[in-house]
Amino acid sequence: MIITFMPSNKKQIANEGDNLLKTAQKANILIDGTCAGKGRCGKCKVRVTSGKISEPNDIEKTLLKGAEIGKGYRLACCVFIEDDMTVVLPEFNSSSSRKKKLTYLPKHFVPNGNIKKYFIEIESASLENQKNDVKRIIEALPDNGYRMGSSLIPKIHDLLKNNSKMTVTTNGRHIIALEKGDTTNSCYGIAFDIGTTTVVSMLWDLNEGKLIDIVAKTNPQNVFGADVISRILYSTESPQNLSMLKMKIRDCFNDTIDTFKKNHGIDENHIYDATVVGNTTMSHLFLGVSPENLARSPFTPVFCDPIDMTAKELALKMNPAANVHLLSNIAGHVGSDIVGVLLATEMTQLKGLNLVIDVGTNGEILLSQDGRIITCSTAAGPAFEGAEIFQGMRASRGAIERVKIEDGEVNIEVIEDEAPIGICGSGLIDALAQMLDTGILDYTGKLDTQEAAKEKGLADSLVSRLRKGKNGNEFVLAWGKTGDDVVITQKDIREVQLAKGAIYAGIKLMLNHIGAKAEDLQRIILAGAFGNYIKTESALKIGLFPNMKKDKVISVGNAAGAGACMALLSKDERKKAYAESQQVEHLELSTHPDFQTEYMNAMYFPE
Amino acid sequence: MIITFMPSNKKQIANEGDNLLKTAQKANILIDGTCAGKGRCGKCKVRVTSGKISEPNDIEKTLLKGAEIGKGYRLACCVFIEDDMTVVLPEFNSSSSRKKKLTYLPKHFVPNGNIKKYFIEIESASLENQKNDVKRIIEALPDNGYRMGSSLIPKIHDLLKNNSKMTVTTNGRHIIALEKGDTTNSCYGIAFDIGTTTVVSMLWDLNEGKLIDIVAKTNPQNVFGADVISRILYSTESPQNLSMLKMKIRDCFNDTIDTFKKNHGIDENHIYDATVVGNTTMSHLFLGVSPENLARSPFTPVFCDPIDMTAKELALKMNPAANVHLLSNIAGHVGSDIVGVLLATEMTQLKGLNLVIDVGTNGEILLSQDGRIITCSTAAGPAFEGAEIFQGMRASRGAIERVKIEDGEVNIEVIEDEAPIGICGSGLIDALAQMLDTGILDYTGKLDTQEAAKEKGLADSLVSRLRKGKNGNEFVLAWGKTGDDVVITQKDIREVQLAKGAIYAGIKLMLNHIGAKAEDLQRIILAGAFGNYIKTESALKIGLFPNMKKDKVISVGNAAGAGACMALLSKDERKKAYAESQQVEHLELSTHPDFQTEYMNAMYFPE
Repeated sequence: MIITFMPSNKKQIANEGDNLLKTAQKANILIDGTCAGKGRCGKCKVRVTSGKISEPNDIEKTLLKGAEIGKGYRLACCVFIEDDMTVVLPEFNSSSSRKKKLTYLPKHFVPNGNIKKYFIEIESASLENQKNDVKRIIEALPDNGYRMGSSLIPKIHDLLKNNSKMTVTTNGRHIIALEKGDTTNSCYGIAFDIGTTTVVSMLWDLNEGKLIDIVAKTNPQNVFGADVISRILYSTESPQNLSMLKMKIRDCFNDTIDTFKKNHGIDENHIYDATVVGNTTMSHLFLGVSPENLARSPFTPVFCDPIDMTAKELALKMNPAANVHLLSNIAGHVGSDIVGVLLATEMTQLKGLNLVIDVGTNGEILLSQDGRIITCSTAAGPAFEGAEIFQGMRASRGAIERVKIEDGEVNIEVIEDEAPIGICGSGLIDALAQMLDTGILDYTGKLDTQEAAKEKGLADSLVSRLRKGKNGNEFVLAWGKTGDDVVITQKDIREVQLAKGAIYAGIKLMLNHIGAKAEDLQRIILAGAFGNYIKTESALKIGLFPNMKKDKVISVGNAAGAGACMALLSKDERKKAYAESQQVEHLELSTHPDFQTEYMNAMYFPE
Repeated sequence: MIITFMPSNKKQIANEGDNLLKTAQKANILIDGTCAGKGRCGKCKVRVTSGKISEPNDIEKTLLKGAEIGKGYRLACCVFIEDDMTVVLPEFNSSSSRKKKLTYLPKHFVPNGNIKKYFIEIESASLENQKNDVKRIIEALPDNGYRMGSSLIPKIHDLLKNNSKMTVTTNGRHIIALEKGDTTNSCYGIAFDIGTTTVVSMLWDLNEGKLIDIVAKTNPQNVFGADVISRILYSTESPQNLSMLKMKIRDCFNDTIDTFKKNHGIDENHIYDATVVGNTTMSHLFLGVSPENLARSPFTPVFCDPIDMTAKELALKMNPAANVHLLSNIAGHVGSDIVGVLLATEMTQLKGLNLVIDVGTNGEILLSQDGRIITCSTAAGPAFEGAEIFQGMRASRGAIERVKIEDGEVNIEVIEDEAPIGICGSGLIDALAQMLDTGILDYTGKLDTQEAAKEKGLADSLVSRLRKGKNGNEFVLAWGKTGDDVVITQKDIREVQLAKGAIYAGIKLMLNHIGAKAEDLQRIILAGAFGNYIKTESALKIGLFPNMKKDKVISVGNAAGAGACMALLSKDERKKAYAESQQVEHLELSTHPDFQTEYMNAMYFPE
């Protein structure tokens, strides 16, 4: 049976009884979803426009609206193929545009990379100069001590035939490429930041130390679950699954390189260096290393130290001898992305007490006290990335990103001024802060019923937005024209409480650990694209982090990615990254005796 | 059309008009031959037992006997396929048995290798010991500073599952293998000596420093020509040819490893180290590097320095992380085999004036004067290996290896006491020495006609052995029962003169170069299996090297192979090999102003 996926018109052969979501995965088609096909999240919504299809099951009846089912909408994870089908996928806008422009390197950063290219003229051999070709090439280089990469030796004869000039590329003292003619102008490197949700790739001109382009793509492992734990579980089911997760990242890198090639006309063989950061699970999956033990105490990684492999070994579309450097991890849930954050924030040099929070799909926290660094990871979960939130979505077109309730009126801002279709992290935090302000939400996280709100004497315009939905009480943020309202449910509020409670408890325990107090904090630095978009007042209102003066909360953008760039551009930073990763103290929260108590307390909103 | 090769019963599909020799090569079937299918040597003799076959051509009529043609014998290079055929190959006995037992290491040699295996128990991870797996493995090793091979990291999770013990293999400070259970007893290395004619492979137990087995196989590149120049020419015809020559050597190594596995029940993954020596052309072909420039002045090699590559990169059937170390070459025609000879003869430590001659397919010579080393290569050609000699063959079953003429009677010794079918190098030198003694051969190399011999009054039994053959005058060494006599032709004598003249002239020019005289030589060391079998008196008689007392001429067997073993077993020797290769002075003979004169003089036999 042939399944046609629109709008790409990709076709995939399937057997009767095959699951539609899995068939899409086989065809390498990305259908959003956060529960990995478990029928919980309701996000793998597709529209079947032709072909016989079974009756919707109970899950679909619960998670889809009646009108949607009428129009042919179904959950891909619930559909089992009976016939040829045409399936229309929802418009899938990666969260790229937002994350792009957020890579900031420290002002005084000086590139000092490993890669150099030389256009040289090689002496001819003669009976008086019987030196071999390799030796004559090496002697034509400006310094001494170079070693020829053994895989280049078979190329030399043809390069020197009727020709005495060539371009030599070196990585340190190692010759990694020999090219015809003068290609010294073309010298690139890529810093990759593997986020659980988004893979951000930064292309640099290594000659100029200049950023050429940033491409952000949805992490294609996403189809196997939104959070690291789902992916770990998926990877442990079979060696094929582990290998699949590895290939997804590799393909994502290679797709990105294709994009760079297309956009900038560069030759992939002129990409000579790369760095990679990611959380510990992403680092493991990138190398095809089982992350099984990261899902259970004592959360032991297989490896932490930096890994250097060639592009050839990793099957990446770069110069085969390009070195790909994966920065070191710190612990099971504090990965090389946090080492990148350390570099970019220059935290070890900060005076006094400072806090860095990276609110990605995981919530990692760094606390510095005059150069001493403590870190922990919190099981914040992907709520702020839209997962586990009924109408949650990433910060892309149609997402409510700002909410303001004034005089009983709900004002929203939607990305690209579209009709709202969901809510993203910053909108969610705004909404909750505003709902707390109006009083329809209390500090315990309980959403008023219509009756309770009426009793409190709240404005009718607000009261009318409270209603009982399929999944309990909900608050209508935006009325949809065809009944597709955007709402915040009681369950959504609980998810936010769990997430922010985890972060807050982590901060508290770290402060306790070094005997410091929140009041002593000099500043809070928000890393990650998300930090750039949340309104500090709202974050303070819901108690995402300790109370501070607003201007002491600073956003630094994608610091993990910036750190990867620094390690790409400077061998000193690469060394420093390892040294600092060794120096960081890791606090394990999950088994900390005070964790449960602090977590419970932190779940409430500040009164 | 299907061509069946007997006795192996291998079948190969061919098209009408395909050449039979090339079809055999496609089927990976080795048919002897020294002229690379040019129809000159007449050695690719096969018997066609079924199938339609064209009339013999002029070449076949010249090189085959009428009786042979009647029995179905044909030259594979002259046969073009017209129909299904069954082809019987001559019994092909590699020269292995002779070369096997000739690997001698210096008496006081102490193994000091790079490879160590440890069976270790690894601490469990716990919340108190959150160290990653790699770190805990490294800490379980007896010393510090080990680095984990990155390709091993994906294996660790499964190895440590329900298990805390494993075997770790290290090469220096680099961890190259992780294995389940205790495999410390099984630890092997191979020294390969790529001769132009024979590839000798020596399997060592690296734990015990014990030689397990030697396998000698005919170099399968042989089908593309017997000498290095033919192979260089073949390699330059197309990139495919170069690649074919590379694959032939790789396949030969892998076949040898299969033999080792079969004979000794070893696991190929337990072969962790290897060394390779060969002349410069063989070294280039082994890596797929074009040797084109080695065939013309100034004979520039592409590379000389040692090369280290992994077995994986070279597609060899060993542990993929095994290091394969190709020893350094000295010059275009003085290869790493001569560096091996240097190691094994410990020449740099010898007092006084000493000469080492390696009479392989090339003739390389080393001259030492109190530690100073000069080397040259001579274009001796493969005459002593049987090539270019009408009934020449390698030292295998049926070869005449000793000749003694007493009282007009010719007494021969044949390898394995068979009926003689040809003559090998030592037999050839004996024969010429004896023919010089009797007077039927004069010092200019001229063979008497029957008439001239009669005139001289030589015994009738000798005179009757002189006759006019297809290719000029010849001397019958052995009467065959069915007309297959073994003869020495005038042309054979000329070939020996060219070969021995080249060697003698090289020695002379080297002595002149340092202002020394042949009389001052302390000793002559003969390296190579051949040196073991030639009779010193005969070699002196024909003037292969300067006149010496017989007991000052010493045979040391396969010194190149012994040197490869030393470099395999000892990291100190590996370093020393490189240091000595840098210290050797190379004398280029081919363009030396005195070469032609010396060469002409040296072609005569001593009077």
